[in-house]
Amino acid sequence: MSRVVKLAVIPGDGIGPEVVTEAVKVLDAVTAGSGVTFEKTPFSLGAGRYLETGDTLTDDDLAAIAGHDAILLGAVGGVPGDPRLKDANIERGLLLKLRFELDHYVNLRPSKLYPGAAGPLADPGDIDFVVVREGTEGPYVGNGGAIRRGTPHEVANETSVNTAYGVERVVRYAFALAERRRHKLTLVHKTNVLVHAGGMWKRIVDAVASEFPGVDVDYLHVDAATIFLVTNPGRFDVIVTDNLFGDILTDLAGAVTGGIGLAASGNINPDGAFPSMFEPVHGSAPDIAGTQKADPTAAILSVALLLDHLGLTDEAARVTRAVENDIASRNGDRTTAQIGDAIADRVQA
Amino acid sequence: MSRVVKLAVIPGDGIGPEVVTEAVKVLDAVTAGSGVTFEKTPFSLGAGRYLETGDTLTDDDLAAIAGHDAILLGAVGGVPGDPRLKDANIERGLLLKLRFELDHYVNLRPSKLYPGAAGPLADPGDIDFVVVREGTEGPYVGNGGAIRRGTPHEVANETSVNTAYGVERVVRYAFALAERRRHKLTLVHKTNVLVHAGGMWKRIVDAVASEFPGVDVDYLHVDAATIFLVTNPGRFDVIVTDNLFGDILTDLAGAVTGGIGLAASGNINPDGAFPSMFEPVHGSAPDIAGTQKADPTAAILSVALLLDHLGLTDEAARVTRAVENDIASRNGDRTTAQIGDAIADRVQA
Ligand SMILES: CC(C)[C@H](C(=O)O)[C@@H](O)C(=O)O
Ligand SMILES: CC(C)[C@H](C(=O)O)[C@@H](O)C(=O)O
Repeated sequence: MSRVVKLAVIPGDGIGPEVVTEAVKVLDAVTAGSGVTFEKTPFSLGAGRYLETGDTLTDDDLAAIAGHDAILLGAVGGVPGDPRLKDANIERGLLLKLRFELDHYVNLRPSKLYPGAAGPLADPGDIDFVVVREGTEGPYVGNGGAIRRGTPHEVANETSVNTAYGVERVVRYAFALAERRRHKLTLVHKTNVLVHAGGMWKRIVDAVASEFPGVDVDYLHVDAATIFLVTNPGRFDVIVTDNLFGDILTDLAGAVTGGIGLAASGNINPDGAFPSMFEPVHGSAPDIAGTQKADPTAAILSVALLLDHLGLTDEAARVTRAVENDIASRNGDRTTAQIGDAIADRVQA
Repeated sequence: MSRVVKLAVIPGDGIGPEVVTEAVKVLDAVTAGSGVTFEKTPFSLGAGRYLETGDTLTDDDLAAIAGHDAILLGAVGGVPGDPRLKDANIERGLLLKLRFELDHYVNLRPSKLYPGAAGPLADPGDIDFVVVREGTEGPYVGNGGAIRRGTPHEVANETSVNTAYGVERVVRYAFALAERRRHKLTLVHKTNVLVHAGGMWKRIVDAVASEFPGVDVDYLHVDAATIFLVTNPGRFDVIVTDNLFGDILTDLAGAVTGGIGLAASGNINPDGAFPSMFEPVHGSAPDIAGTQKADPTAAILSVALLLDHLGLTDEAARVTRAVENDIASRNGDRTTAQIGDAIADRVQA
């Protein structure tokens, strides 16, 4: 059986190109001789492109990317404080635009403490959960504005928009995932303060729960959830939450499981109407760009999520296992490429 | 010199009454013979009162409380899931109503890792920072609503309202605090996504910074801030942030410094137009109410913040020192009252 997967590759800025090089190396290694070929189209996007051309993401870029089967992204974002980027918002104009335009309503972020990975907790226990973060609604919609900007009378509002349609589909995805895992789902929100949005999330989770009688459901306020993430992260299996709370919880979860250098994510359109996008949770880290100091593991684990999404579950498992073994045997400093080589060797072994 | 302070006392629900008893015990101990008398008026408010009378906070309650010099609050909130509380929102109708009506625009939340306190971090380092959380704006304003509630076409919005007036006053307070501490201020927001609200916060911090040239300023996105709270909490001195981010960060900070049983807070109206309110960060914990298992330390440290606010700095320092010594010498289980007694003894010693 031979299959061609059209992959859009967006290396991006800072350490993005370095980690993507290693991710692609591992992707090629694990699919070598498998009958699946990844046809890769590179896209030059990010702060670098903006500085050259003034473009963040054109309609043509978007259309071209949308014509692919999947997307691999490194990281985007320029040097903080660069005055030439003052009017750019690469995050909103590129990253969030892709997530919204390609209807990536599931932002999938697994957190696992691999043996050998050193996290900050004295007694972490077993950590293995997945955050299902809503990706197309909430406070991220960009429905804000300001009046009397720059005066003492300025009022700046941000509106979180939440729909039953948008919440139900991601909640359903989370329940289905919990059913394939340890059968536990935790809704995280702030229902006591955000009574309308939170109330709707809660009602929808309660309603969908009746279709998944095998899944245990509980609820935590977001503030309490951060406490459990550092005192008892083992209590979590699947967390479903809104876009902003998911952003916060997954950075914390990444830290707790050994650092953001290991945290992978998938921006998924489960319907398949648009290509899904896989990216490390970390940013572009311009301060260490080009020094081969970045850990490509998060990008490589994002390739595992990509393979899984494409139904290439054996290949996905081989990448994850190779990463696990690599982490377990780490000692001493290695360059970005050395880590990529080591993991690529392992997937072929 | 003799002085009378009119103190409104709201024991509240669950463990609230137990921890307030100990906090008052320590307050009485530290002021005995000092010439300052606290005239205490108890207010029966919370889920218990609601279940009895259907009232959450009447105009008369509010007016009576506002006539005091300060407020000490235990915790409010009924048993989660109690069907009789389905239509009550004690948090919004009581706690947040007090904060908003009494213009508690500074929500002051110190985090300190006391020697002997056991937090979850393997290598916590020195932790000693204060979160200055805005208390009267942001996503907490209650400007939300829903249409087509309960249907598949429901849309539920929440609006975060932020004003230059509201942000500038709390930012100014935070800078003044940083100047009295280690001269470092960190703004936490999410400027790359919440561009209007975040942009205004950033501009105001930059503007006020020029009046405080001795204070070093930096900025972190809220997601990154949670990472530093578990990997390098020693980097923080004063954090200034919005109402919702402050809620999340301070629960996490409480966990990191040995648990929410130690985390105190002040809801402060620095102008003195309204009484300020002091309360432990923890909730009413109905599951352990009446068992004398609650740690009253957070409530007692809230008394220290209260004394400080009233200018009784020596008394405040004595309470803090007594708590510090108590924590350092902890071993074995003690009841709520035993901890209160031990600390009360120490402040008199
Ligand atoms: C860069 C930023 C817009 C983004 C987000 O907030 O979603 C990032 O923090 C992430 O978690 O992928
Ligand atoms: C009870 C709740 C409304 C409150 C808040 O969100 O402010 C609490 O979490 C706190 O931090 O004091």
